[in-house]
Amino acid sequence: MLSTSPGYSITVRVEVPAGATATAALTSAVSSAGGALTALDVVESQTDRMVVDVTCDTSGEEHAALITKAISEIPGAAVRKVSDRTFLMHLGGKIEVTPKVPLKHRDDLSRAYTPGVARVCLAIAEHPEDARSLTIKRNTVAVVTDGSAVLGLGNIGAAAALPVMEGKAALFKQFGGVDAWPVCLDTQDTDTLVEIIRAMAPVYGGINLEDISAPRCFEIEARLRELLDIPVFHDDQHGTAIVVLAALTNALRVVGKRLDDVHIVVSGVGAAGNAIIQLLLAQGATKIIGCGRGGAVHSGQKDMDQFRSWIAEHTNGSNLVGSLKEVLVGADVFIGVSAPNLLTGEDIATMADDAIVFALANPVPEVDPVEASKHAAVVATGRSHYPNQVNNVLVFPGFFRGLLDAGVSDITNDMLIAAAQAIADKVLPEQLNASYIVPSVFDVTVAPAVAAAVLAKATARQ
Amino acid sequence: MLSTSPGYSITVRVEVPAGATATAALTSAVSSAGGALTALDVVESQTDRMVVDVTCDTSGEEHAALITKAISEIPGAAVRKVSDRTFLMHLGGKIEVTPKVPLKHRDDLSRAYTPGVARVCLAIAEHPEDARSLTIKRNTVAVVTDGSAVLGLGNIGAAAALPVMEGKAALFKQFGGVDAWPVCLDTQDTDTLVEIIRAMAPVYGGINLEDISAPRCFEIEARLRELLDIPVFHDDQHGTAIVVLAALTNALRVVGKRLDDVHIVVSGVGAAGNAIIQLLLAQGATKIIGCGRGGAVHSGQKDMDQFRSWIAEHTNGSNLVGSLKEVLVGADVFIGVSAPNLLTGEDIATMADDAIVFALANPVPEVDPVEASKHAAVVATGRSHYPNQVNNVLVFPGFFRGLLDAGVSDITNDMLIAAAQAIADKVLPEQLNASYIVPSVFDVTVAPAVAAAVLAKATARQ
Repeated sequence: MLSTSPGYSITVRVEVPAGATATAALTSAVSSAGGALTALDVVESQTDRMVVDVTCDTSGEEHAALITKAISEIPGAAVRKVSDRTFLMHLGGKIEVTPKVPLKHRDDLSRAYTPGVARVCLAIAEHPEDARSLTIKRNTVAVVTDGSAVLGLGNIGAAAALPVMEGKAALFKQFGGVDAWPVCLDTQDTDTLVEIIRAMAPVYGGINLEDISAPRCFEIEARLRELLDIPVFHDDQHGTAIVVLAALTNALRVVGKRLDDVHIVVSGVGAAGNAIIQLLLAQGATKIIGCGRGGAVHSGQKDMDQFRSWIAEHTNGSNLVGSLKEVLVGADVFIGVSAPNLLTGEDIATMADDAIVFALANPVPEVDPVEASKHAAVVATGRSHYPNQVNNVLVFPGFFRGLLDAGVSDITNDMLIAAAQAIADKVLPEQLNASYIVPSVFDVTVAPAVAAAVLAKATARQ
Repeated sequence: MLSTSPGYSITVRVEVPAGATATAALTSAVSSAGGALTALDVVESQTDRMVVDVTCDTSGEEHAALITKAISEIPGAAVRKVSDRTFLMHLGGKIEVTPKVPLKHRDDLSRAYTPGVARVCLAIAEHPEDARSLTIKRNTVAVVTDGSAVLGLGNIGAAAALPVMEGKAALFKQFGGVDAWPVCLDTQDTDTLVEIIRAMAPVYGGINLEDISAPRCFEIEARLRELLDIPVFHDDQHGTAIVVLAALTNALRVVGKRLDDVHIVVSGVGAAGNAIIQLLLAQGATKIIGCGRGGAVHSGQKDMDQFRSWIAEHTNGSNLVGSLKEVLVGADVFIGVSAPNLLTGEDIATMADDAIVFALANPVPEVDPVEASKHAAVVATGRSHYPNQVNNVLVFPGFFRGLLDAGVSDITNDMLIAAAQAIADKVLPEQLNASYIVPSVFDVTVAPAVAAAVLAKATARQ
């Protein structure tokens, strides 16, 4: 049985003979081909013929073709058009730029533009800090990518990354009230990227780096943090780390274990894995093992870059050597931010009692969550198909809302931890169970809570 | 008498004794100090006291202080606060980014963001030309500056230029339906600017360069036109040239002269002057003299850059040498895009009969337009205080609307001329007179007419 998704939804416009059985035949064609029908809309009707829009979720392109074929084989039916609803939604882009001030008559123009604007410019030239109050800088975030590591798609380049950055910008506004703008840069040279982002910073109150491959992302972020007086945040690192810490906090509450006690195995030591390990250590975890493609990261390995060396120095205190499967034996927590199908249910069975499994690889997790749940107490994924979706959308809108409201220039571990705590606490004690360790991404109270937590930490430091 | 402007409007919040004469005293204080009262709003009232917001136009900061003093000297009055209405309008910025798609429930998120967005990304990776339909690229323009030549303010830098670029972005949407985004770059190195603008281009359907100093602007534009497959337009050059050609077309209609006959003196051979000269030549003008600070540009001068040399080669056929005042004698047309107060009414008197004077320096024109109008048949400025405001706002929203709708990669002289013609023709023969040679900047039919003209030229070339 294929798993259908509204992300792969189609609308088939079909002409069928009018009659009592017409729509029943459509329903049955979709269902026999495994589609999940969501709507039947009659768009034209005559005494003998009717035109119907059949909308259904599919599991992908081949499946959509299969369903369309089933519909076309209904006696007397003629398929006119097949629309992919996801593509329809993206047509013309997903965000727009709109004026916040009236521009209806001469007085408006004189104030918003010339000649009045000249005084505002001079005020900022004299007092650069006034840019935060007199321009969009107060509320803007650049969503910057070089297209080198987009979703699970890899290095698809700047232009092809734009639909993701637009979507992110839309979510920034929807959940955080932040004006975010996509910046897709057609270069993957580290020095050039740093110089471009530095140069474009005057317009922004914050920089959200996105989908930049490791280890380049570490250097780019570190250098920008040195250069800029606005906060720089690589969402694939810190956004993921925050939501993982939030989910882990609640998962540990469910099983009654403590972070400083548990054995944690992190699969994947790229952007996300690095940040997760750092944040868990900062929050008091003591027994972490990071695993790359070659197994457990341990000191004494050859040819490690500085980031891998850091992990070797700060984790794996017993300096275990072995494959992911080997070091997983007896562990309390598995956190996967790596690759599909690395583990089976049997591997999960070798973990400690009341194991916690976060299999976050997208779109296919490190272990089948259904199999994992046979042997673990708590299972989470990055997908919306299963309970406990660990998704950065819970983090970035509120986190930047807080940073912008605080007007800070730096991001601290305190803020990351406070944000994770705020997300975890959005699941009330009476709501908490193994299938509900993170709030819904549509819970509109999450972002304000995260923002308040960040703002409180920022204010406390001043 | 000082000339007041809504660009320098203030609101004085003042507490005064209640009584029949209270507001009369306020009105008279403002008027005695030379302010132009626009509103009296009572914001609090008690039996013996009232609080009033007095809003009035002033001529500038000193004048605002004078008016505030006059109000404070009313017996029993206490000024609580003085607000600058221009600054109030800019608070928090003038544009925002808003989602165009619903993001209310899981299905929306699955299509607009993950997992659905991945298919849209892959479609663009395979067919890069689809970015124009599936992303904001179809409708976006970058308003790019390095802050090197902002309005008449000079080199005030990237951050201080932002209020202008925001205002421009707001006008782009208001009049042209274009999603424009400010890009203020903190570098003035030509190579770096070219590389940054090239790299950021994937997000945009067009580049509007703005307030970049000459001669760097020429090289930057030329190199970007080579590198990019989207149109690149330096508004200070071509926007100004288009609106000048439109105004001149109608001014010549008023005086009954022909472009290929008239003697034209252009004062200022920077960004705007260069582009004006090139466009007038393309449209058939034969007798142009360009003047820089050293007088008429002529062949045989030493130390000319390539742009100055081009002017020397293509204008001033008689190779006249002399100051602006000297070569102006007998000229039919003066076009100033240079500096304040270079000429007097007497200089204008030395021009040919039915002279045309465009004194476009901002905020102070090359010659007092009131003095000029005593000796010239048609006078225009860049200010809204006088008739015939020659303003780029008439050009850029419609011009880019046309470029984006046509999906062109290059801008041709044909398009510039067609845009000028469309603006000129918005003044109907029965409306045309010496005080109405350009349509109002608030005429919402101008941008669509310009867009249609550009689109027609673009289509004709395909």
